[in-house]
Amino acid sequence: MKNLNSNWVTEVFKDTALSFKIKEKLYSKKSKFQHIEIYETEKHGNLMSLDGCYMVTEKEEFVYHEMLVHIPLFSHPNPQNILVIGGGDGGTVREILKHQCVKSIDFVEIDEDVYKLSKIYFKNLTRGLANDKRVNFLFGDGIKFVKEKKNFYDVILVDSTDPSDISGGLFSTDFFKDVYKALKKDGIMVMQSESPFYDGEIISNVQQRLKKIFNKTYLYLAFIPIYPSGCWSFSCGSKKYSINKIRNKKSVIKGLKYYTHNLHKSILSLPQFVMDLMK
Amino acid sequence: MKNLNSNWVTEVFKDTALSFKIKEKLYSKKSKFQHIEIYETEKHGNLMSLDGCYMVTEKEEFVYHEMLVHIPLFSHPNPQNILVIGGGDGGTVREILKHQCVKSIDFVEIDEDVYKLSKIYFKNLTRGLANDKRVNFLFGDGIKFVKEKKNFYDVILVDSTDPSDISGGLFSTDFFKDVYKALKKDGIMVMQSESPFYDGEIISNVQQRLKKIFNKTYLYLAFIPIYPSGCWSFSCGSKKYSINKIRNKKSVIKGLKYYTHNLHKSILSLPQFVMDLMK
Repeated sequence: MKNLNSNWVTEVFKDTALSFKIKEKLYSKKSKFQHIEIYETEKHGNLMSLDGCYMVTEKEEFVYHEMLVHIPLFSHPNPQNILVIGGGDGGTVREILKHQCVKSIDFVEIDEDVYKLSKIYFKNLTRGLANDKRVNFLFGDGIKFVKEKKNFYDVILVDSTDPSDISGGLFSTDFFKDVYKALKKDGIMVMQSESPFYDGEIISNVQQRLKKIFNKTYLYLAFIPIYPSGCWSFSCGSKKYSINKIRNKKSVIKGLKYYTHNLHKSILSLPQFVMDLMK
Repeated sequence: MKNLNSNWVTEVFKDTALSFKIKEKLYSKKSKFQHIEIYETEKHGNLMSLDGCYMVTEKEEFVYHEMLVHIPLFSHPNPQNILVIGGGDGGTVREILKHQCVKSIDFVEIDEDVYKLSKIYFKNLTRGLANDKRVNFLFGDGIKFVKEKKNFYDVILVDSTDPSDISGGLFSTDFFKDVYKALKKDGIMVMQSESPFYDGEIISNVQQRLKKIFNKTYLYLAFIPIYPSGCWSFSCGSKKYSINKIRNKKSVIKGLKYYTHNLHKSILSLPQFVMDLMK
């Protein structure tokens, strides 16, 4: 055991721990909902953790945000009305705005402090959001919000923390039913759904619940170095479209660092042990 | 910073650190070449580190070994003579032996202690190797060994540690030239080539060196939770065959946990930032 001194931040996840060398702690305070900490790291830019779990680093955030957003938004032929639940750091909305066809984004984050702090410490994630008239800032409970909507959204994205007191409901059958109702008849939903290496049971449960509600369900993966195991899954429920075909020809996005159309087309080619989680 | 006590083992890699909870230290000694440590972990089976770098855990080793071996061995129409440089834990040879067409494996590990210890602490990796007449145990320097061979191997696999005093030569142009000569006219070589997130420069260098020598060069990735960033790359030089087509129809392998033919066919669909490293 090498002992790490106070110049490191550590996230313990079950029997594993991941640490980053830091320059300084920038912020640490309990919001109404969770403990928010922000660090300046040595080489990964600023890092935010919520209740001790890493959410985002400036250097690696492109992977999560590009893969949560562009897979469904390129799979849908004409995504116009989007709902984002969670994602208070702004990165998900930033990526959605790159699609020219998008007309409106309802951005429902439960913890307004996360967004306010991101405006200060994660400027690359929040830049341009406040001035874009397509974004409706609706701070509040996404579970309640989606109950009131019917046949309205083309795409719903659930950008949550790990299942916990405040986010556990976002992994439930009742919530998925409400999401289904809130989507148009050809709508798509995607949510983050944990690591297949360390949380296979969560993935299996989410997949089984989605299968009871949606015509088509999918799982895909991305390399996310700051999350436990570095392998992260996204679960998808779709009413009509398969998730591995490019149908949205209206958007041309330059400068992406992870997503490519080629990668998109092969997104369903998964390791065997991950496919086994979907049975 | 959460302080981890002595029940954890930690690998520091640049400005990151990855820790596993352990039950006990099973072995710790300097061999002629490196410091070998073996731990029983809480949930990942036994773990071996060399000079402080994790090499293998019983629970996750299937990813690295299946992906190093089965991509080239299914891409080659009839792989019969194989050379393995490194891979003293035995997992690579174990996977090669699953291909019925393989007639001979020259297994050249520089540190015999690694193999001897794996026979004790990693029985699933070494089981059956000693009794299989196709395996030639040739403990010694792989760089010297390959110099003496010409036009002999169908596939050469380089299963090394990170570039260091003893393994740095395995990333050099001179070595790649010797590997090229040792391969038959339609041979394929694959080597582990570090993380695109944390060691992009190594990947770029390896790719550029291979490009000068081989007709075709490739890069592919796998999710390996115990290596820095969890995202690991394999670099490939091929004289004739592309690496993303199944040509070896003689082998039918059941029970693999990572590799699938579908995954194989899409192995060249890479994230944009990884493609950029290959330019």
